[in-house]
Amino acid sequence: MPDLRLQPRSRGIADVPGFRLNGAACDVRGKGYDRLDVALIVSDSPAAAAGVFTRNAFAAPPVALCREVLAGRARVRAVVANSGNANACTGARGYEDACRMQALAAETAGCEPDEVFVCSTGRIGEPLPMDRLARGIALAGAELGSTAAHGERAADAILTSDTRRKVATVRVKTTAGTITVAGIAKGAGMIEPGMATMLAFLATDAVVAPGVLRKAMGDAVDTTFNAITVDGDMSTNDTVLLLANGASGVRPSGGDLARFREAVRLVCDALAEKIVGDGEKITKVVELLVSGAASRADAEAVARAVGNSLLVKSSWYGNDPNWGRVLDAAGYARATFDPARVTLAYADSAEHKPVPVFADGVAEPRNKPRWKKIVARPRFTIRLGLGAGRQTYRLLASDLTEGYVNFNKSE
Amino acid sequence: MPDLRLQPRSRGIADVPGFRLNGAACDVRGKGYDRLDVALIVSDSPAAAAGVFTRNAFAAPPVALCREVLAGRARVRAVVANSGNANACTGARGYEDACRMQALAAETAGCEPDEVFVCSTGRIGEPLPMDRLARGIALAGAELGSTAAHGERAADAILTSDTRRKVATVRVKTTAGTITVAGIAKGAGMIEPGMATMLAFLATDAVVAPGVLRKAMGDAVDTTFNAITVDGDMSTNDTVLLLANGASGVRPSGGDLARFREAVRLVCDALAEKIVGDGEKITKVVELLVSGAASRADAEAVARAVGNSLLVKSSWYGNDPNWGRVLDAAGYARATFDPARVTLAYADSAEHKPVPVFADGVAEPRNKPRWKKIVARPRFTIRLGLGAGRQTYRLLASDLTEGYVNFNKSE
Repeated sequence: MPDLRLQPRSRGIADVPGFRLNGAACDVRGKGYDRLDVALIVSDSPAAAAGVFTRNAFAAPPVALCREVLAGRARVRAVVANSGNANACTGARGYEDACRMQALAAETAGCEPDEVFVCSTGRIGEPLPMDRLARGIALAGAELGSTAAHGERAADAILTSDTRRKVATVRVKTTAGTITVAGIAKGAGMIEPGMATMLAFLATDAVVAPGVLRKAMGDAVDTTFNAITVDGDMSTNDTVLLLANGASGVRPSGGDLARFREAVRLVCDALAEKIVGDGEKITKVVELLVSGAASRADAEAVARAVGNSLLVKSSWYGNDPNWGRVLDAAGYARATFDPARVTLAYADSAEHKPVPVFADGVAEPRNKPRWKKIVARPRFTIRLGLGAGRQTYRLLASDLTEGYVNFNKSE
Repeated sequence: MPDLRLQPRSRGIADVPGFRLNGAACDVRGKGYDRLDVALIVSDSPAAAAGVFTRNAFAAPPVALCREVLAGRARVRAVVANSGNANACTGARGYEDACRMQALAAETAGCEPDEVFVCSTGRIGEPLPMDRLARGIALAGAELGSTAAHGERAADAILTSDTRRKVATVRVKTTAGTITVAGIAKGAGMIEPGMATMLAFLATDAVVAPGVLRKAMGDAVDTTFNAITVDGDMSTNDTVLLLANGASGVRPSGGDLARFREAVRLVCDALAEKIVGDGEKITKVVELLVSGAASRADAEAVARAVGNSLLVKSSWYGNDPNWGRVLDAAGYARATFDPARVTLAYADSAEHKPVPVFADGVAEPRNKPRWKKIVARPRFTIRLGLGAGRQTYRLLASDLTEGYVNFNKSE
């Protein structure tokens, strides 16, 4: 779908008609008011919604509450989110606090509590500072709007150890008019399967039934947010939400629906790439393309083994084309293949011609100078063919740096 | 079995009657003759043997050859091993080189080639320097012996990035006389499930049938070498061998056989602990004791998720009692349990009284000063109760340091 592309400048959810939003600073961390840490996103009219959540057994109270909202309501009105404290492993009090956030946001937005999604991200195991948070929600709610500044404040307020704002917007011209899909996200650490310490909120003004929305988002998340890794850690709070308020009056169907779905995927893909590219103290992003697998599960297992190998990630950091470690990791993924049929190649990108590294059971060291150039790039592609079938998997992975360890050695 | 214990000073396999051994320097890496890099271990008489090998799909040619030896011969005579080059991902030439090592060792030891195990460890993907290696095998074979110096030279010759020699010896007094079990090992990087870049050679002078030996070693490996993790990477060359030459004339049975089996486990356990404790640039060893699991697989999955979490390992390095990351990792292990029933405690060791950290769904922060003391130790114990059953798992894990990343960023 060549006409679908990311807008060169996104204002995040402020790009979507019928949504007003804002971010405020309320010192969630108890360290000062120097950063925005509460976001409020309100749809002017009731919106269809879809959600994907962490599968972590220690899913945080706000995740439980979001699931209840989705189960109970066909339409929702708002999302309230804070950074700096994950409200996870906080027991019964944590659930009460999440409900209180919901009620406060509902009051400000002028809707019912069970029309409000609640998300938290940050440190695990400490109670939320509810007094300050209440003031923050009121503050954000008092000046909702849809300017670029509003969009930026909401996007900034959900960041934790991220160093960059993460926004993306796609516009879809349909036969009945233009619809917009936009989103914001936060990432940084605990980034892996079944999502990550990751929040992503998408919004659209398309008219879409909840079931269609759910399918569009599930498919998009599977190949984007679920196909990235920084450190292999899945968090207690991962949440992706998509709200469709219908403000455009356009109900896409047929080819237009396919293009709407692709727009959702594009926004998710852009946000996922931004999350990996802003992983904690990383220096490069590596695209792993596994092909020729007997099953998609095999392809994914191999990609994850490579993308999560500490030795592989350390060698990427050192610009070392250490193909032996790549094969070693592929070899312990418990996938079915014959090592003699495996091919490995490095390339500048998925679009560039790959340079062979390993084939017929042996390396091709004469290409070594070219490998070294490729792996020195800030982003490159590794193609691994298993020769065992036709299934594929694409994973975006980061390197592992001394900076990551230093950054995470204490909180 | 309180009377079984490690000898305070081990000479490695030189402690076992009827074995002669040696190590030599032959510049496998092509960087000089400053380190020992070829080991030869010879039994004076044919020995029963058992072996456990990597499950990596890219298992190296010497691993394939070892499997053939075990399948073909009821009795073996020798082990030849080199460090500095893993002879992995080397195709048909790699297999020929392994066979050539076998033939050279057999010539020196005065036996048939298919009575010789061959092991290699080191860099992946480069052909062995066979001329130099041939001289090294001849050199080692020319002065076999069983002094402490011989035992040390053989143990040193298999080390790669290890910083310390790894040897262990247990003597078992049976009703028919004393038998000895001793071993040497190398570890350092690529240390994880289904073993690691790990070689371990054990020897005993007990009279033991191959089937009994196999069972004793399989059971021992399961709870020792297979229950450690440094970086989660399983290598192409992992091999554990146990040779029993019967030189003592003692054939243990009944209670004595149980004690022999325990002696094998003790030697494996000591070597495994030495491997973790000498993991690449680590600063501490953490014993993870998971209990109350619905299945042993669940207990193991939780232990491995915690022990391999980059965030958890980084916080150990920083002496940070970050229990939230421990629970988060347990939560994504896909094990069956109710988070509200989970208990977490830290202790100086498995023998010390645990200090509660988390119970009934919330933390016990008043104990925080005591947690902090515990996690600052070079070795401590984490007890994680799942409240879902009676199965347990014990994993020895290391921390993750900036030094590890720096050390592995290029070879």
